[in-house]
Amino acid sequence: MKKNMLIGQSGGPTAVINGSLYGAIKEALASKNQIASIYGMVNGIEGFLNNQYIALADLEDTNDLELLRTTPGAYLGSCRYKLPEDLNHKIFKTLFEKFEALNIGYFFYIGGNDSMDTVSKLSRYANEVASDIRFIGIPKTIDNDLVLTDHTPGFGSAAKYVATVVREIVIDASVYDNKTSVTIVEIMGRHAGWLTAASALARRFEGDNPVLIYLPEAPFQVEDFLAKVKQGLKSTPNLVICISEGINDGQGTFVCEYEGAVNVDAFGHKMLTGSGKYLENLIKEKLGIKVRSVELNVMQRCSSLHLSATDLKEAINSGVFAVQVALRGESGKMITFNRHHNNPYELTYGIADVDLICNEEKAVPANWITKEGSDISHEFIEYAKPLIDGEVTLPRDGGLPLFTYRKH
Amino acid sequence: MKKNMLIGQSGGPTAVINGSLYGAIKEALASKNQIASIYGMVNGIEGFLNNQYIALADLEDTNDLELLRTTPGAYLGSCRYKLPEDLNHKIFKTLFEKFEALNIGYFFYIGGNDSMDTVSKLSRYANEVASDIRFIGIPKTIDNDLVLTDHTPGFGSAAKYVATVVREIVIDASVYDNKTSVTIVEIMGRHAGWLTAASALARRFEGDNPVLIYLPEAPFQVEDFLAKVKQGLKSTPNLVICISEGINDGQGTFVCEYEGAVNVDAFGHKMLTGSGKYLENLIKEKLGIKVRSVELNVMQRCSSLHLSATDLKEAINSGVFAVQVALRGESGKMITFNRHHNNPYELTYGIADVDLICNEEKAVPANWITKEGSDISHEFIEYAKPLIDGEVTLPRDGGLPLFTYRKH
Repeated sequence: MKKNMLIGQSGGPTAVINGSLYGAIKEALASKNQIASIYGMVNGIEGFLNNQYIALADLEDTNDLELLRTTPGAYLGSCRYKLPEDLNHKIFKTLFEKFEALNIGYFFYIGGNDSMDTVSKLSRYANEVASDIRFIGIPKTIDNDLVLTDHTPGFGSAAKYVATVVREIVIDASVYDNKTSVTIVEIMGRHAGWLTAASALARRFEGDNPVLIYLPEAPFQVEDFLAKVKQGLKSTPNLVICISEGINDGQGTFVCEYEGAVNVDAFGHKMLTGSGKYLENLIKEKLGIKVRSVELNVMQRCSSLHLSATDLKEAINSGVFAVQVALRGESGKMITFNRHHNNPYELTYGIADVDLICNEEKAVPANWITKEGSDISHEFIEYAKPLIDGEVTLPRDGGLPLFTYRKH
Repeated sequence: MKKNMLIGQSGGPTAVINGSLYGAIKEALASKNQIASIYGMVNGIEGFLNNQYIALADLEDTNDLELLRTTPGAYLGSCRYKLPEDLNHKIFKTLFEKFEALNIGYFFYIGGNDSMDTVSKLSRYANEVASDIRFIGIPKTIDNDLVLTDHTPGFGSAAKYVATVVREIVIDASVYDNKTSVTIVEIMGRHAGWLTAASALARRFEGDNPVLIYLPEAPFQVEDFLAKVKQGLKSTPNLVICISEGINDGQGTFVCEYEGAVNVDAFGHKMLTGSGKYLENLIKEKLGIKVRSVELNVMQRCSSLHLSATDLKEAINSGVFAVQVALRGESGKMITFNRHHNNPYELTYGIADVDLICNEEKAVPANWITKEGSDISHEFIEYAKPLIDGEVTLPRDGGLPLFTYRKH
């Protein structure tokens, strides 16, 4: 008997999360002998609990499916919603009743480590109640912090944004090159510095800007930082420094907490703002030179013009592969990437137990962080280069990219 | 007797200021029977006063001239330097001695209204001392605030950046569309709101985000603003608001001054930051809803990926035309744009007295600002649309744009 498929998006958006949705829909449409209807959860599992879902198959009859491929954000809407730890909680029974009512056989969730927690709990509950619904996680995060996979869809395009825009900011910061200045670029990354490390790709030669790069993985020391800024200005009058939003003292205190209070989100994460602003004021106060800070903000995760062709292709293939492994009977797995060669770049897709992935964070290896925490090694450059490669041609109308939007 | 040419860049950088430099160099190279050597002032007139200049003709022998075409920033370096008001000041005599020593016959300055002040003073001094050096201004500013010209090079690409990125931010801001939120986007523009107005191009239909747009030209009223935010949230749960950095109360007080002190730059401009942050805190305090502010910061003026083909072509042609009018004997003029048709878009180049342009600012017309200062009329859309049209293919290496850099 044919079953239906349910797919959702969860966590922060990326430039290619809809690429994975596109891939999964395409593969499901190509598997009509096994998959009857394709449903999308609206606002992830949280929306689905409130009966928010839509049919997705009609997208095929319009141009919208092709537009979906290059539309940033989360077409289905997203959520930050954590299922209870206790599998006996009534919410699981409710969810599975809803799944049964819709004749769901295949469940896909595109997200990061918090979203994989949802896949893990649902597949464990399915085991307990002997449900044959298959639960597959499709990785997504600009943070690149999922374990058991070489990298994650979303990272390549965000890394390409960071490398490109930092290269442009370096040019912008150097126009008054007869004067001394410092520019601090704050990049997303609470605990993992992968995306900030990508700023090293902006360099054209050894010692080029950004001269200093700070990740959350290495303890940040204010005195050492100021000394390196003074030193850096001797060779580079318009110094550019890239920092992760989550730089910290190594003892659990974020730099942006040095001055004020901090909020906590639904997953217990500290909500950060202002490490760049803090360091800007510090340099102004201690060194008395011209300084500005720039936040790459949400632009780094939603830029269609900075799509990496490699990243988009891999995101689409993750969606395709997820449907394939579900159809062959897998459950409780996340799609993983295995890199075989850097040059030429060669990748195959695999699966890993989602229980081993959720709630874990993959840090940048300690030996890839150099110069007592202020630089990135050549190994990272070799790792990241293939992931930002290739350009994507966008559908356009009058100079602006064309996107697709869910009907409300 | 053949004369030499001297060219410089001044004021804030743009994505196409090097396009104009490229155009002028190309035309000078094509006019070798009249122009002997091409010199570039390093850091504008300020650097030239310190004998900082370089020969530019050798660029022809390398790939650098072609790379210059699409390199953002200011290849020659820029300055913010105001010549004295008193033409009897010894600095003018010094400058003209330097011009004579280099056998300069043609002087070009690429910049905005402050830079045109330099062209005006030098050409007036030339008249007084009966020098035959010709002084021509090439317009450049993302602010689009020069008078006597339909628009200025630099605006189209910055407007394309704003329209594209605001469209993407709207998507990013709408992923949790089962929750209410406000996103404030702060756009450059101290006194003129042209660039902020370009955010209206991001809309796909009447009433689409950004729902509210505020320019410096209309007085900003806090109570009215809060009422409109509350009203807007009824139809648009994820409300996006675009504001100029220079929004003010209409009495000379900037919104960002409501809370703190302010600096003044070399030209006597107030240095602004934080109107977006101010309104973010205001909404949090008064309405208690989720709110974030995003600064487009320097990215809006240096993005190569958002180059408008129309803007780049016009920037190049401005440089070409400047050399042509200098060779035919004009001086004390700035290149201007005359638009004849919108659809199909048709433009011719002209000249106007630089004395009438410098230190003037062209505001967005009052009748293009609608809904008591919170929206932009259709006339602006028709005006701006052709200026953001067309894509530019960038030279690339490994996924990143390739730029050229002045040798130090």
